[in-house]
Amino acid sequence: MDFTSFLTSLGTSFVIFLVLMIVFAFLSSRPGNNVVYYPNRILKGLDPLEGGYKSRNPFSWIKEALTSSERDVIAMSGVDTAVYFVFLTTVLSILVLSGVILLPVLLPLSVTDHGMKTQTTSNGTFSELDKLSMANITAKSSRLWGFFIACYWVSIVTFALLWRAYKHVSWLRAEALKSPDVKPEQFAIVVRDIPHVPQGQTRKEQVDSYFRDIYPETFYRSMIVTDNKVVNKIWESLEKYTKKLARAEAVYAGSKTTAKPEGTRPTNKTGFLGLVGKKVDTIEYCNEKINELEARLESEQKVTLREKQQDAAVVFFSSRVVAASASQSLHAQMVDTWSVFDAPEPNQLIWPNLKIKYFQRELRQYLVYFIVALTIFFYMIPITFISALTTLDNLVKYLPFIKPIVNIKALKTVLEAYLPQLALIIFLALLPKLLLFLSKFEGIPTESHAVRAASGKYFYFTVLNVFIGVTIGGTLFKAFKRIREHPTLDEISSLLAESLPGNATFFLTYVALKFFIGYGLELSRIVPLIIYHLKRKYLCKTEAELKEAWRPGDLGYGTRVPGDMLIVTIVFCYSVIAPVIIPFGALYFGLGWLVLRNQALKVYVPTFESYGRMWPHIHNRILASLILYQITMFGYFGTQKFYYTPLVLPLPILSLVFGFVCAKKFYPAFQHPALEVAANTLKEVPNMELIFGAYIPPSLRSEKIDGDRVEDALSQASRTTPV
Amino acid sequence: MDFTSFLTSLGTSFVIFLVLMIVFAFLSSRPGNNVVYYPNRILKGLDPLEGGYKSRNPFSWIKEALTSSERDVIAMSGVDTAVYFVFLTTVLSILVLSGVILLPVLLPLSVTDHGMKTQTTSNGTFSELDKLSMANITAKSSRLWGFFIACYWVSIVTFALLWRAYKHVSWLRAEALKSPDVKPEQFAIVVRDIPHVPQGQTRKEQVDSYFRDIYPETFYRSMIVTDNKVVNKIWESLEKYTKKLARAEAVYAGSKTTAKPEGTRPTNKTGFLGLVGKKVDTIEYCNEKINELEARLESEQKVTLREKQQDAAVVFFSSRVVAASASQSLHAQMVDTWSVFDAPEPNQLIWPNLKIKYFQRELRQYLVYFIVALTIFFYMIPITFISALTTLDNLVKYLPFIKPIVNIKALKTVLEAYLPQLALIIFLALLPKLLLFLSKFEGIPTESHAVRAASGKYFYFTVLNVFIGVTIGGTLFKAFKRIREHPTLDEISSLLAESLPGNATFFLTYVALKFFIGYGLELSRIVPLIIYHLKRKYLCKTEAELKEAWRPGDLGYGTRVPGDMLIVTIVFCYSVIAPVIIPFGALYFGLGWLVLRNQALKVYVPTFESYGRMWPHIHNRILASLILYQITMFGYFGTQKFYYTPLVLPLPILSLVFGFVCAKKFYPAFQHPALEVAANTLKEVPNMELIFGAYIPPSLRSEKIDGDRVEDALSQASRTTPV
Repeated sequence: MDFTSFLTSLGTSFVIFLVLMIVFAFLSSRPGNNVVYYPNRILKGLDPLEGGYKSRNPFSWIKEALTSSERDVIAMSGVDTAVYFVFLTTVLSILVLSGVILLPVLLPLSVTDHGMKTQTTSNGTFSELDKLSMANITAKSSRLWGFFIACYWVSIVTFALLWRAYKHVSWLRAEALKSPDVKPEQFAIVVRDIPHVPQGQTRKEQVDSYFRDIYPETFYRSMIVTDNKVVNKIWESLEKYTKKLARAEAVYAGSKTTAKPEGTRPTNKTGFLGLVGKKVDTIEYCNEKINELEARLESEQKVTLREKQQDAAVVFFSSRVVAASASQSLHAQMVDTWSVFDAPEPNQLIWPNLKIKYFQRELRQYLVYFIVALTIFFYMIPITFISALTTLDNLVKYLPFIKPIVNIKALKTVLEAYLPQLALIIFLALLPKLLLFLSKFEGIPTESHAVRAASGKYFYFTVLNVFIGVTIGGTLFKAFKRIREHPTLDEISSLLAESLPGNATFFLTYVALKFFIGYGLELSRIVPLIIYHLKRKYLCKTEAELKEAWRPGDLGYGTRVPGDMLIVTIVFCYSVIAPVIIPFGALYFGLGWLVLRNQALKVYVPTFESYGRMWPHIHNRILASLILYQITMFGYFGTQKFYYTPLVLPLPILSLVFGFVCAKKFYPAFQHPALEVAANTLKEVPNMELIFGAYIPPSLRSEKIDGDRVEDALSQASRTTPV
Repeated sequence: MDFTSFLTSLGTSFVIFLVLMIVFAFLSSRPGNNVVYYPNRILKGLDPLEGGYKSRNPFSWIKEALTSSERDVIAMSGVDTAVYFVFLTTVLSILVLSGVILLPVLLPLSVTDHGMKTQTTSNGTFSELDKLSMANITAKSSRLWGFFIACYWVSIVTFALLWRAYKHVSWLRAEALKSPDVKPEQFAIVVRDIPHVPQGQTRKEQVDSYFRDIYPETFYRSMIVTDNKVVNKIWESLEKYTKKLARAEAVYAGSKTTAKPEGTRPTNKTGFLGLVGKKVDTIEYCNEKINELEARLESEQKVTLREKQQDAAVVFFSSRVVAASASQSLHAQMVDTWSVFDAPEPNQLIWPNLKIKYFQRELRQYLVYFIVALTIFFYMIPITFISALTTLDNLVKYLPFIKPIVNIKALKTVLEAYLPQLALIIFLALLPKLLLFLSKFEGIPTESHAVRAASGKYFYFTVLNVFIGVTIGGTLFKAFKRIREHPTLDEISSLLAESLPGNATFFLTYVALKFFIGYGLELSRIVPLIIYHLKRKYLCKTEAELKEAWRPGDLGYGTRVPGDMLIVTIVFCYSVIAPVIIPFGALYFGLGWLVLRNQALKVYVPTFESYGRMWPHIHNRILASLILYQITMFGYFGTQKFYYTPLVLPLPILSLVFGFVCAKKFYPAFQHPALEVAANTLKEVPNMELIFGAYIPPSLRSEKIDGDRVEDALSQASRTTPV
């Protein structure tokens, strides 16, 4: 790719971005699309178009995003989203502060040198951009001191801003936890690994007496965790039939036209996917089913509460401080019994994971780490293997019925082109889901924690494979040869450093594409808009179905942060080698801030709130990127034969010390709620009944069995004999 | 050393032991020596000779030791001592269980083989014992399978017994903490890193309002830590003069014989060491001094309480559970403020260390680790240097006045022989004190913790230097040559293994000497007896002085455990190679158990009680020895060209997993008090006044300033302005 083609690709992306922005301005001003462009405001009961002036300026959203405060973001989208913006702002500030020094200093240093002529690495391609990079510096030149100082500057700026950000996020978290509003999760803890029930006691009596002994005044009540698999299933099919009934009734009502006032009663078949089986009247059929399921649900609820108790429980306290203190105190002399943690929001609790025993959790964790490591390093092997098997000829051989389709010529060309990559594409699309599944398999008890864990794993995957893979990949053959000759770490590090400048152009294009196209699509929401309109027109019959069609989902931490972190890593690593990447990085995070600010305020609805617990993860990964950058620079200075290269070594050590100090100073307050924070006074006396009720899973709730009844049922549970 | 000389040395040691035992039996039956042989019982107010039969059987102490229960040990000497016996019993059981299998299986395997003839390592010395060792096995012989299985047997026995021991100690700790007696340390926590005092508040108001907010019902009172350096000094000299006065009065009373009824008033000189200066009447002089010091003490106490407050405090709660929970909860959002830990016994608190700030503590810790590592690895360098300097000729040159002494011929010979080792001997004698000093310098806030830390450091010193030093030392020259040729870890490991059998005899003698002579001296207490009688006769004039002369001190954890651990390491490492060492090891720990049981029940008085916190340290170090043994065996099987050597590798991994599981399951209950334990009901309502009073340091106590006054004084302290 030469310079003009780079500019062309950049220009095209920019034009697409502009078009998408205009499309957004046009579409978002039509009231019919409000549910797509302002769902968060609508769900919060706010007027989509605040102020309500008719002729909306197509760029007014930019003004609104820029003038919105952090407080607005927290109010509309929670602390987690605000923390995500702290991340964006911090990286943006790092890049701006670095760029302000690096661009005016390093670019002249590079352009006025002519080291390139004597080197062979440029391969004659894209020379205009290469001239702006460190590769253009003569080896051993004293100009390298400029790059050396730049290296320190970037690190110091990063330390300073990360420190400020961590402090700020810690404050945000404290403020949120201090809030005088009553939040159920601040009054509860979760207990796992409850030992066997002693003879003559029920599980409930055991838990109650244990906690009443320790907290005689503040213990309120306990809720034994049950195995809800069966009851959930019944409840879900009950929900399904309720929806179906509502839909059938809407269809029936719709069919009562003036021409045919009696209408057509909708029918369906009872067999597989409604395609086979007996034809029945849908309304009658659903009513029947609902009656049957309601009875089954009721009896199953009783059975669940009585007989399917697990050795875990949610314990409620009437005081926030006591709950906070209890969640971090050692309760039992043996740590693998009565282990506690602070309760998350009710909907975040992963009930089936609560029963997993202490050492099984540990074991599962290491097993998952092992599987993830295997996946990261060796995922290409099975994919290559599958690709080799799924050639068109093989497919036809094993699945002869597809032969007529394959013989269409145009289709055949397309299939032949894409089949080899198919396995890889499917794998990459499914990877976040796989990682989330693995994280849940670890036994992690809350949704937000599982998302964090999956996100962390995804980060290692992207950085290792996309960044190092692409960088090294280009020079793989050369690499193997050299490593076989001199198998030292130094050699590998300098190999990585040598192959960087050659790939700078690839990553420049990558970053540019990602922000223009990615954020353009994000802002314009074209795909959700089309889906919504299609559903509205052809599928949705009831209000509830319509609401489901535009329900916006959340910001998608799990995949968004690793994607951003990849950009951070790329920009860090190239910041000194090819400082021209810095403005692109800044543009990515600046544009991202702007677009996502709009989306956070108006579109996305968070599914959970973890009060900024994501930050320590982000912080550590930014530091990891920084260390990767510092090591790369060590190698790169080496290849430039810079005499003082070892002076770069204090940098990674400094980064480790910085990370250690931050972890010591800030991290514990993210692990456990601090007592001084929990001790803040509340607006009102907490209604313990409501708090308890919030934790009853929907499938166990019923008009007939309320909170008290649940407790009654639990107390009556059969007395167990010792095991 | 050949076999006969080994037997001679063994026999001599045994005879010395027998003699010492008879001496003990004889001396301990004389009532005048009761204070030397039964001080613990006397201090506890018990009859030294329970039962009180006159003709004490000289071996009755053995029966008494054997029939004493763990409960007796705890009652007489505390949980820490009981834990030390758990350690002795565990190691003894490991050795007995190992020996029962290893001796009858491995010895015949060795004796009936003749591999030795073809090897050159035996050097022809001590061949009788070498025949019993693994060195006598032909290389690649299938007999090695026997040794291989023995290797696993020892490890499995160790795991099983360590697990049982950890469980037992955990139970002991829980029982002690559950005790219905009121113990001041269970109602207090220590707070460090208190932030700057806000304007318009005193330090005391700040601390009180902070904790009253969090614990409105259970907070009792706080005690601000002060800088007591000056007041301690005054108090100490006051004590000194009080003693001196008592002594002078006793001397004066003693001089009033019938011949000279007016007596002689004792006099002393006021200058350096009482050797120079004005001659004064001691009684008058002391009275004067005491009056002066009492006035100074009182004013200094006021100054200290008001103006020398530090940013640390002891906080008291009226509930055991709340104190236990508070000691392990995160109080402040920033971890380097308001950091807490559970209070130790009042006399254990190292006041000057409490004011050290969070990150300074961290820094000091790493600094000390670094210094200790340097000391362990390079202590020979300065000592060699000093030895080279302190030759006799040099000494005479720099200190000419010693010339006449040195010229005495007999003395010269002795000096020339011992001077080179003098530096080493002094260093080794001072090392435990140095390590304790370094541990306190780390900022460790309690005595027992400092002793544990020093003990841990001493373990690494002994194992690395004595064991590896002596083992490798013999083959050092050979070692350097081989390592230079093949510098791989494998080579070093096998080198260690190769040099082991040659040194087996050295260690056999070492272990034998240590238990016979060491425990003989321990039991007979000849040195303390002589010192006591000398003091009684020539120095002590008052009852208090006499009591001080026989005050027994404590068991001496700090140095005793590392010494025992060295034996554990030696016996483990040789257990399979030369199983004949096992009975000696068992004898060491059996005899040690017997002798120390007697000493614990009757002699030593513990200075502090940490409720078994020493155990995790001991446990980890036994495991470390086991891993060293397993790695050595890996190397040794390698040198024997055993084909299945890699099958030894699972052992160290298993040990690490075992250590990890134990740390997870048991350790937290040693770090923090478990709430279920603290929640046990008390015998009586705690007298908070007494609990508070127990923590006032002696130098701040006075009849005039009691607990309330201390608080009053603190409340009146000058209001500070913000810094």
